[in-house]
Amino acid sequence: MQITADQVKQLREMTGAGMMECKKALGEAAGDVEKAVDLLRKAGVSKADKRAERAASEGLVESYIHPGNRVGVLIEVNCETDFVARTPEFGALVRDLAMQVAAAGADYVRREEVPADRIARERDIFRAQLEGQNKPANMLDKIVDGKVDKFYSEVCLMEQPYIKDDKRTVGDLVTEAASKTGENIVVRRFARFRLGQE
Amino acid sequence: MQITADQVKQLREMTGAGMMECKKALGEAAGDVEKAVDLLRKAGVSKADKRAERAASEGLVESYIHPGNRVGVLIEVNCETDFVARTPEFGALVRDLAMQVAAAGADYVRREEVPADRIARERDIFRAQLEGQNKPANMLDKIVDGKVDKFYSEVCLMEQPYIKDDKRTVGDLVTEAASKTGENIVVRRFARFRLGQE
Repeated sequence: MQITADQVKQLREMTGAGMMECKKALGEAAGDVEKAVDLLRKAGVSKADKRAERAASEGLVESYIHPGNRVGVLIEVNCETDFVARTPEFGALVRDLAMQVAAAGADYVRREEVPADRIARERDIFRAQLEGQNKPANMLDKIVDGKVDKFYSEVCLMEQPYIKDDKRTVGDLVTEAASKTGENIVVRRFARFRLGQE
Repeated sequence: MQITADQVKQLREMTGAGMMECKKALGEAAGDVEKAVDLLRKAGVSKADKRAERAASEGLVESYIHPGNRVGVLIEVNCETDFVARTPEFGALVRDLAMQVAAAGADYVRREEVPADRIARERDIFRAQLEGQNKPANMLDKIVDGKVDKFYSEVCLMEQPYIKDDKRTVGDLVTEAASKTGENIVVRRFARFRLGQE
């Protein structure tokens, strides 16, 4: 049973669950997206979907400056109430996210923010790398999709492996925090400056 | 003797000195730009012009988070050597600049970064506000120039009055630090996040 990147994306949009959880659920549901939604609901992971419409306009602005002051990060993470924003758990999440951006870098928060032409360029390059290997067209497409997914997991914060536990993505970390607090949690934006670089 | 905004701008580009210092020098030189350059050179303020070509690629990345974590700033300030970057004076300058951005806000580092269409729009609005007051055309131009200068001093960090001493601009502060350290100092960029706002 092959799980496609599109299925995972669709499930993530429907449930707000993390990428790893969606892949797992799709595997268990043999690729049936509706069944995967039910599995995630049962597991309590997709509670976030009911919250997705609720405004997340409270939260924290936090920074992380790497020792030596050559790399620094500013991040805004939103939740729904100032009460949750002031909890030690939310504060710890935001500091972990700032450190993640400093250590692993990222150009975007989520894949929806990656410009279409940047993805088209990457896709062209991946396809060109595979040409002349006499692979069947459908296999070629799948390999290219896989490489594009890999690319997303490098440039998008929410899809990166979490630096403190690479079994989980940063998106999983945020979803878990949302489940625990009962509030929609959104990484709104970040800036990362590296001395003397773009 | 009327000192125009263009003269001040020209003098600033020639010497790297602050806006207030340039206005003062132009006043003393009765509007003669060459004479004003000499005055600034004599005062030691325009030493920076010889440094303007030298690469400023060392420095510090620093942040300032306002208590309550609703406003935060990330800033990169460059100098020429790591030695100067590590001095307490440079560190203090960078922290003061970060606090200035947090407290006073700013959209740009310097006026060269303000898009031409934004200035054209402001200029149109200022002109429209003055119409019907039967002012002579040359006076109208001067008033509009003055209002545009005022606008720059609000949106450009380097032209803002310094929050700890509003007799000086932030540009003056940077120029003085450059004179003291003997190195070219450049505010390269900043990011300012305010919770829930653009």
